[in-house]
Order: sequence, then C-alpha cells, then structure tokens
Amino acid sequence: MQRYKGIIAYDGSGYSGYQIQINGKTVQEVLEKALKKMHKGIEIKTVSSGRTDAGVHAYGQVFHFDSSLILSSDRWVNAMNGLLPTDVALQSVEKVSQDFHARYDVEGKTYKYFLYTGKIRNPFERNFTSYYPYKLNIDRIREAAPYFVGTHDFTSFCSAKTTKENKIRTISILDIEERENKIIFTFTGNGFLYNMVRIIVGTLLHVGNGKIDPEDIPAIFAAHDRQLAGKTAPAEGLYLWDVYYK
Amino acid sequence: MQRYKGIIAYDGSGYSGYQIQINGKTVQEVLEKALKKMHKGIEIKTVSSGRTDAGVHAYGQVFHFDSSLILSSDRWVNAMNGLLPTDVALQSVEKVSQDFHARYDVEGKTYKYFLYTGKIRNPFERNFTSYYPYKLNIDRIREAAPYFVGTHDFTSFCSAKTTKENKIRTISILDIEERENKIIFTFTGNGFLYNMVRIIVGTLLHVGNGKIDPEDIPAIFAAHDRQLAGKTAPAEGLYLWDVYYK
Repeated sequence: MQRYKGIIAYDGSGYSGYQIQINGKTVQEVLEKALKKMHKGIEIKTVSSGRTDAGVHAYGQVFHFDSSLILSSDRWVNAMNGLLPTDVALQSVEKVSQDFHARYDVEGKTYKYFLYTGKIRNPFERNFTSYYPYKLNIDRIREAAPYFVGTHDFTSFCSAKTTKENKIRTISILDIEERENKIIFTFTGNGFLYNMVRIIVGTLLHVGNGKIDPEDIPAIFAAHDRQLAGKTAPAEGLYLWDVYYK
Repeated sequence: MQRYKGIIAYDGSGYSGYQIQINGKTVQEVLEKALKKMHKGIEIKTVSSGRTDAGVHAYGQVFHFDSSLILSSDRWVNAMNGLLPTDVALQSVEKVSQDFHARYDVEGKTYKYFLYTGKIRNPFERNFTSYYPYKLNIDRIREAAPYFVGTHDFTSFCSAKTTKENKIRTISILDIEERENKIIFTFTGNGFLYNMVRIIVGTLLHVGNGKIDPEDIPAIFAAHDRQLAGKTAPAEGLYLWDVYYK
C-alpha cells in the first residue's frame, strides 16, 4: 500500500461541512465515494487536516489515504475529477511516506475571510463572501487586529462547544486587505479552535461599527468568556486556504 | 403612473432564462412577483431589453415598468432586494419619461464571455465561467477576431431557431483579454441575434485549437450556413454586461 497526500478545493455552499455525519451531504462522503469507484468498490478511508463547517469553503484542504494504485498526480486528478461533483475538485495527489498523517502532522494553517462591503447586494458573491453593507471604520479594525497576534488563550474567541482542553494557540499573521467592495482577512496560525476565525472576524466587525473598542480586546481575552466577544461571522465568507506540514 | 427604468443583476445558474415561460423558474417571474408584493397584490408587468437564455448571467439587464409608487432609487433597491431571492439583485431604479421603452430604445449592448483555462477544475468558477482546459493558440484567436467586427450578415453565426428576418448586425468592439487562467471576450454591438455571442466564441475556440483557420472566417460569413461555424459555447460563461440607450 502507498500512502498519498491529496489537496482538495470545494465550494462548501451545498454541504453540511467537510466531515462525514449521519444527516446531510458532506465533502468527505463524496470524496470517499469517488475513491471507492476508482478502487472497484473497495472502501478507501481518508483522514483530513480537520473539519470545516457547513457552508465553509476550501482552496487547500489536505487529506491522506492509502491505496494499492500507483498513479501520477495528473492521473489521480483527472480520474477523480471525472467522478467528483463539480463543486469539489482534487488539485493534486503526491506520494508520501507511510507515517505521514494529515491531521497530526499539521504545523499551521491559513484561513481567509472575505467580506463584501458593497452597498447593493451582488448575486455572484452571495455564497462566496459575507455581505456587510453597513458602516465600518477600518482604522479601528486595524488598531484592534494586533491584539490577536501572538500566543493567547482563545477561550473567549471559540465556540462554547469546543471540546479541546487546551485553548492556547498562536496566530502569527492577521492581515487585513481592502479591495474594491471587499475586505479580506488572512489568518495564519499553528491551530484554530472551533469557530475561532469566525468569532474573531465577528469581534473585529463590532470594533469596526463601534460596539467594542480596540483597547477592550485584552480584557475580553482575560475574561475567558465567549459572551464578551462579537457574533460568529457567517460561514460563507470563510475559506481554509492552506495547510502547512514539516 | 410613473415609468421607471430598472437595472438588475442575476446569477442565471438556477433559472430557465430571463423571460417568463410555462415551464421552469425565470428571472422575470421572480422580479414581477417582488413588484407585485410591493404593490399590495397588484400585478406589475415589466418589459426587458431582451431575453437571456438558461444559465446566462447579467450584470446590467434593463427593464421598464409603470407604478403609482413614487420612491427614490435607494428605496426601490432596498425594498425590492429584501423581497427578491439572493441570486437576483436590483441595482438601480430611475424615473424615465413615459415613452421610454426598454426593448425598442436599445442602441447597443455589451456582452462578456468568460473562459476558465486552468488545467484543473476550479469549483468556485463552475457556474460563472466556461471550463476549457485544452490547448488554445491565442494568437490565432486574435487574428480571427477582427473578421467579426463591422457590419455583417450573421446568418452563419446565429441559431437556426432565430426568428428575426434581418440578420445584419454591427459589432463595434470585440476585445480579448488574457488573465491568469482566464480569457475574457467583450462584445459590443448594436444588436445580437439568438446565440450569436456563444456561436462566435465557439468559432473562435475552433480557430484557437486549429479546427478552423482565421482566414476561413470570411467564407463562413459568405456561406450563410450555421453548420460551418463552431459549436455554441456553454451558457455559464456568458454575461449581459450593459445595455445602452440614447
């Protein structure tokens, strides 16, 4: 058996998230169904870098699987993309050593969050950006952002449903880019808790519209209280952009 | 009654085209339904600049309607966009004189056609560009394009189902722009026959992949035979971009 590392992109709009669950169509399910077809009915299990929620997208989700087939990346990609639905597309497949693990070996991830700030709704953006046509002071957002960079206990900035005990994570980059009618947030860090990116974006929006002051952020961190942070920003603006390994 | 000119954008992916028909959901239908709600149940008829086919998009489709309501553009847009589905969005509404007619008064239109030329499928582009991962010689396409500019009989480059007698039209601009993984064709002209843009794009693709030579184009025009032109390019790459009036 050969272990492979795959990179997959998906439009999450039509899915109940990445990870297989009892109700609702998932990306992992359609991926494993396509792999099964390629292996003449033999079930092929995949392990991903982590789940993404319903409606969340990915450019560079990573997974591993073991196969008796020895194919080049191009042949994997062509064959699999002929079997996958058009909202999911394999980008590359490479041979890795047998001890590579798509989840345990993650050293970092980049997420991007896209906000559509145009005054009038854009039907082409509806599933791919979060629509925010309200007043926003970007200078206040830029003032608040550095408080999130570095190593912190993110208890106040993750879902109350988070099961992980250790809530200390390191954000190495929080970049904010303004384009015409868009604001793009880029987060790079060693790990992200459940809803963490969406809650930080939601908090930055509250800073931008005046509900929270930039200098309030340290006290929100210190309180270890999810209630003090902003609302969870909608799923459709979020993309798992890249996953880093050793 | 006040006559209004509206501009509407729509993602055509989920529609059987713009114009109301017996089977299938249409853009005009959801637009008139929203207008009816705004007018407390009174039917409001709209007249558009022309139909678009199933799966074809619009940034700037134009229509007119008459109403007893006197509202500003902002108020029309806000109220209507609250009633329209999220894949259709009104962009502006302005008062026009009673003799303005959205179809008869058209002086010209711009269509754009987006081709996705990346080798690997991009799930985010699937409904918004036409996927063409094959070899394409853009220099040949640029050589062929000027043959379409000017005043010609476009019988060879419109659907056999075209009902219009007069097939002479003038294309004033045919621009070809290369971006990363994309080719964007822009057509501006005084009128376009049924499937005309898609058949010209399909013909240019045949030029680009070697099936037709650039210098064959005049003979195809002269033959008045749809069979000699290229295939009709898929709907998902086409956008009604702008409509011009006096």
